[in-house]
Amino acid sequence: MKWMRFRHNGREGFGCLQGEQVLVHEGDLFNAPRATGEQIAAAQVEPLMPCQPRTMVGLWNNFHALAQKNGWQPPAEPLYFLKAPGSWTAHGATISAPPAQVGRIAYEGELAVVIGRRAQRVSVEQAPAHIFGYTCANDVTAIELLNRDASFAQWTRAKGFDGFGAFGPVIETDFDPAAASLRTRVGGRERQNYALSDMIFNPAELVSRISQDMTLEAGDVILCGTSLGVLPMRAGSQVEIEIDGIGVLSNMYG
Amino acid sequence: MKWMRFRHNGREGFGCLQGEQVLVHEGDLFNAPRATGEQIAAAQVEPLMPCQPRTMVGLWNNFHALAQKNGWQPPAEPLYFLKAPGSWTAHGATISAPPAQVGRIAYEGELAVVIGRRAQRVSVEQAPAHIFGYTCANDVTAIELLNRDASFAQWTRAKGFDGFGAFGPVIETDFDPAAASLRTRVGGRERQNYALSDMIFNPAELVSRISQDMTLEAGDVILCGTSLGVLPMRAGSQVEIEIDGIGVLSNMYG
Repeated sequence: MKWMRFRHNGREGFGCLQGEQVLVHEGDLFNAPRATGEQIAAAQVEPLMPCQPRTMVGLWNNFHALAQKNGWQPPAEPLYFLKAPGSWTAHGATISAPPAQVGRIAYEGELAVVIGRRAQRVSVEQAPAHIFGYTCANDVTAIELLNRDASFAQWTRAKGFDGFGAFGPVIETDFDPAAASLRTRVGGRERQNYALSDMIFNPAELVSRISQDMTLEAGDVILCGTSLGVLPMRAGSQVEIEIDGIGVLSNMYG
Repeated sequence: MKWMRFRHNGREGFGCLQGEQVLVHEGDLFNAPRATGEQIAAAQVEPLMPCQPRTMVGLWNNFHALAQKNGWQPPAEPLYFLKAPGSWTAHGATISAPPAQVGRIAYEGELAVVIGRRAQRVSVEQAPAHIFGYTCANDVTAIELLNRDASFAQWTRAKGFDGFGAFGPVIETDFDPAAASLRTRVGGRERQNYALSDMIFNPAELVSRISQDMTLEAGDVILCGTSLGVLPMRAGSQVEIEIDGIGVLSNMYG
């Protein structure tokens, strides 16, 4: 099932996408939501972020191909940062370019895991029961900021500008990350195309490992990291992140 | 005024502290809250986090004395990370020790700024109008994790364990950071005692600079960084962070 949140006639709601229709639901997305019987044409709703996280975790160095290309060792444990809440934005929203002195801004097409049930120190075997589904994400990054200060890598800041954490359009609950590929297109031109099976820590391992440190709640999101093909964006570019079986996250940058 | 949130007879509320009484209020803490006329003895309420942030920012290397001792250059811009929402905890709560393999855990007594009004690219001159008040914070840190992976400093993880972001007990709205000192006591023994005037970027500068990157919302918190005297804690220690004119944040560790 493909779940989405939306605004329609000034009202916020959620539902599942069936063909061109949104079947409106009510209650808790993560706990037995009920169909209201109402249907709205998908073309008539404004997509919102597909869930409302408390925490969004992002991974660094989580794909073998990118590690190999950059000469990075595969890490012994997941290396992560947080995406600032102000950075979270929806499919269809424009990602504003920061002031020029921030430097070049890159897209990073990523798979995002959506937690469905509180995860606190869960094992790898238990982890799938805590995953609700998957969506697409653009982990936008101010690449020149990252190492501008030699004493302190500015991960939080470089990835935390308003609008830098786009995710959506839907959460797919029936999805096998090991069988799908991700493609990023900028201005219609394909820039990333990688198999999600190349992950160093797969989603179940990420949920298990991260939940040893911090409790993950329903709606929390883990961005699984990116692979080859990251480049700066020009203002005025349409960036699309497509994952087989989920859909296309599309945002204007500029 | 000293504002606090509390639980009393199973109900959550907020109010201002006057002597030994809490004058209960209703509405929005940041927008003309109304006194209900009810008073409760402060000793009878359970303190909650004094506000409910969306984002908690933490500063690294923001005190001259600590920078000098460690041979760090004063940074050209604020160097910051985020405290994971799961780490936020209240005055009086026990901070659970993580598993032994995480290594030593240190307290860091800090001044915390509480935002009162949305701040988006505000100037240093405008910033004070966006500050609601100040509270005490313990920016608890797993110091051995920080540099365990040579390729990626794990700031988020080292500071993000459940319970690692204690703050409270109250937000003082009438406070001059340049005129106050902070003291940290562990098991009754003073370990930190520093003047807040020694900050590299003061609160107005922090709010202005950080708001250039991310929009800060009412209730968001900025931890201003710590100074000399940070040490690991032993399980079973009471840690108190006291700031002149605000009060004492006290938490058991272990």
